[in-house]
Amino acid sequence: MTTFPPNSALLIIDVINNFEFEHGKILAKKTLHIVNPLKQLKKYFKKQQLPIIYVNDHYNLWQANLDRIVKSCLNPLSEMILQEIKPDEDDYFLIKPMHSAFYETALNTLLQQLHVNTLVLTGIAGNICVLFTANDAYMRDYQLIIPRDCMASVDDRDQSYALTMMKNVLKAEIIFSNDYIEN
Amino acid sequence: MTTFPPNSALLIIDVINNFEFEHGKILAKKTLHIVNPLKQLKKYFKKQQLPIIYVNDHYNLWQANLDRIVKSCLNPLSEMILQEIKPDEDDYFLIKPMHSAFYETALNTLLQQLHVNTLVLTGIAGNICVLFTANDAYMRDYQLIIPRDCMASVDDRDQSYALTMMKNVLKAEIIFSNDYIEN
Amino acid sequence: MTTFPPNSALLIIDVINNFEFEHGKILAKKTLHIVNPLKQLKKYFKKQQLPIIYVNDHYNLWQANLDRIVKSCLNPLSEMILQEIKPDEDDYFLIKPMHSAFYETALNTLLQQLHVNTLVLTGIAGNICVLFTANDAYMRDYQLIIPRDCMASVDDRDQSYALTMMKNVLKAEIIFSNDYIEN
Amino acid sequence: MTTFPPNSALLIIDVINNFEFEHGKILAKKTLHIVNPLKQLKKYFKKQQLPIIYVNDHYNLWQANLDRIVKSCLNPLSEMILQEIKPDEDDYFLIKPMHSAFYETALNTLLQQLHVNTLVLTGIAGNICVLFTANDAYMRDYQLIIPRDCMASVDDRDQSYALTMMKNVLKAEIIFSNDYIEN
Repeated sequence: MTTFPPNSALLIIDVINNFEFEHGKILAKKTLHIVNPLKQLKKYFKKQQLPIIYVNDHYNLWQANLDRIVKSCLNPLSEMILQEIKPDEDDYFLIKPMHSAFYETALNTLLQQLHVNTLVLTGIAGNICVLFTANDAYMRDYQLIIPRDCMASVDDRDQSYALTMMKNVLKAEIIFSNDYIEN
Repeated sequence: MTTFPPNSALLIIDVINNFEFEHGKILAKKTLHIVNPLKQLKKYFKKQQLPIIYVNDHYNLWQANLDRIVKSCLNPLSEMILQEIKPDEDDYFLIKPMHSAFYETALNTLLQQLHVNTLVLTGIAGNICVLFTANDAYMRDYQLIIPRDCMASVDDRDQSYALTMMKNVLKAEIIFSNDYIEN
Repeated sequence: MTTFPPNSALLIIDVINNFEFEHGKILAKKTLHIVNPLKQLKKYFKKQQLPIIYVNDHYNLWQANLDRIVKSCLNPLSEMILQEIKPDEDDYFLIKPMHSAFYETALNTLLQQLHVNTLVLTGIAGNICVLFTANDAYMRDYQLIIPRDCMASVDDRDQSYALTMMKNVLKAEIIFSNDYIEN
Repeated sequence: MTTFPPNSALLIIDVINNFEFEHGKILAKKTLHIVNPLKQLKKYFKKQQLPIIYVNDHYNLWQANLDRIVKSCLNPLSEMILQEIKPDEDDYFLIKPMHSAFYETALNTLLQQLHVNTLVLTGIAGNICVLFTANDAYMRDYQLIIPRDCMASVDDRDQSYALTMMKNVLKAEIIFSNDYIEN
């Protein structure tokens, strides 16, 4: 049983989502598949008292207001996902204005305060916001671990290429989450 | 009657505050004096349909959650201020991790989306977070207008020097709010 | 004959290079193939009085010193490339600490001063520094044009996927340079 | 004899200067007074093998080209200063686009690579670029030491207020350089 380094944080990107965009239906469906492993991962991080950080689009509210963002995303496509995976009271939650979770957010300062040096990256879409975030994390010198069963993309080839790029260019470790956690 | 330029936004810094720091009592008292002019200013900006943007400390919650931040700040010192001046549903609200409202926040992107080029800076403390924000605004090429009756500092000389610095170094226009708005 | 928009700038990434890394020899060889179209493109931008901006690694000198950087990169692999394509006296030249040309550089401020809204991205490696730069440009709202014959990567599939990603995710226009310039 | 902490770096702001601005003559004259202590400080840092980092305006060249910047600044006002205090081959040298040495520069990444956590801030103008830099350093969690005899401002009261602000707001240690170095 391998395990996460002691200074890891779990990053969950854009899972508070309305899926109202081209191919949103496909992404919603694929996101449903990652909900369970992601929940297990959250549970594990919580048990280990490691930080869980959501970084999410603000859905044009431009308001740091978790409840309103969740409410504005609620629709038949997102309902089950939101129910299962929305932030708890004690999870960190930041909004981001663009794709990368680092761009114009307090993420880097939060990670430094928490003495995090390893990011376990999850969420959607794998080839867009997760990949942009991985790039920015790499430039800021974080180690990257990508549980491939906790990341979803519209297109399977895009997902696969994003993983390849994270591995080859960003030196990320690509894993399956249940190889790292006790069930 | 002078008036604000058409691409102005009202920035309100750190008024959601628990005043739990050295000289916090003094600052709370001085903040009470700016509540009324600030309310008038908000009313005016709302009538003109100009943006009102709160940027505020997150009080170690690191959670984009307006309600929890307001709640965590509520105490006898802050109560009246919060009642009078807390954000409305349609005001923008961003959290900031450090002093400047630009540092690791989405403020700049929001201002660009709103086509804002002039910032009307208000809030507390005038010689710290408001001044840091003014510096960063100046480096990003925004025009600055400072209604001196809507900004408070613990120490009167610090307040006065901050104003002087904004005027001389940052080319800010220092005004009294009621010279700019109809009562 | 299509042409570049009036507010375009030519960005040339990391061509001042020592190629001293894994597969550096391959990249040097591929870079030789882009030298000629890139020279034509430079000539065209110069004739149109459009800005030409080099953004380049500092080769651990951490010194804003063009001559020393060029000198430190000079070796049999780079010699011909440097001869042909090194910055002229009147080209802009910025050093960057990491992959993206925007990360911790003055590029964004320079582009704003020059009223640039469209970036013509060239250089090496296409799937790394050029792609990272493209991502950051997109988040900052620049239009992107990629002359595919002026960008090189070690691996052809990586090059091709980078182009696909720029097209699909970043809405970049992928072109051949000589469709845009008179020869 | 007090001494600098082991992870200190000497920051020298904007001393490569043409003094061609309002009150430039006054600032040039005051800068002459700091040249000697600053040289001693440089010598001390060099002997201790601690990093010396110049961060400087680019004088609208937008070119990372130390020689051209020095040359463009050379005039009767600056000549003696440049002669005495210009960067050596082995000093770090970064250009900055605006007032703060951190804004759109690689300074933070350089400092992290050098494991610096304490900045000894020097240069001109004390109440503008040095103060802006101090603010940004404080937000990035650096300890600050200000040798007051190595910092110059046009106006003595502005200099004095900048020092007060650094001390009270930014928790900087205000010193005289020769209390810290052996002569």
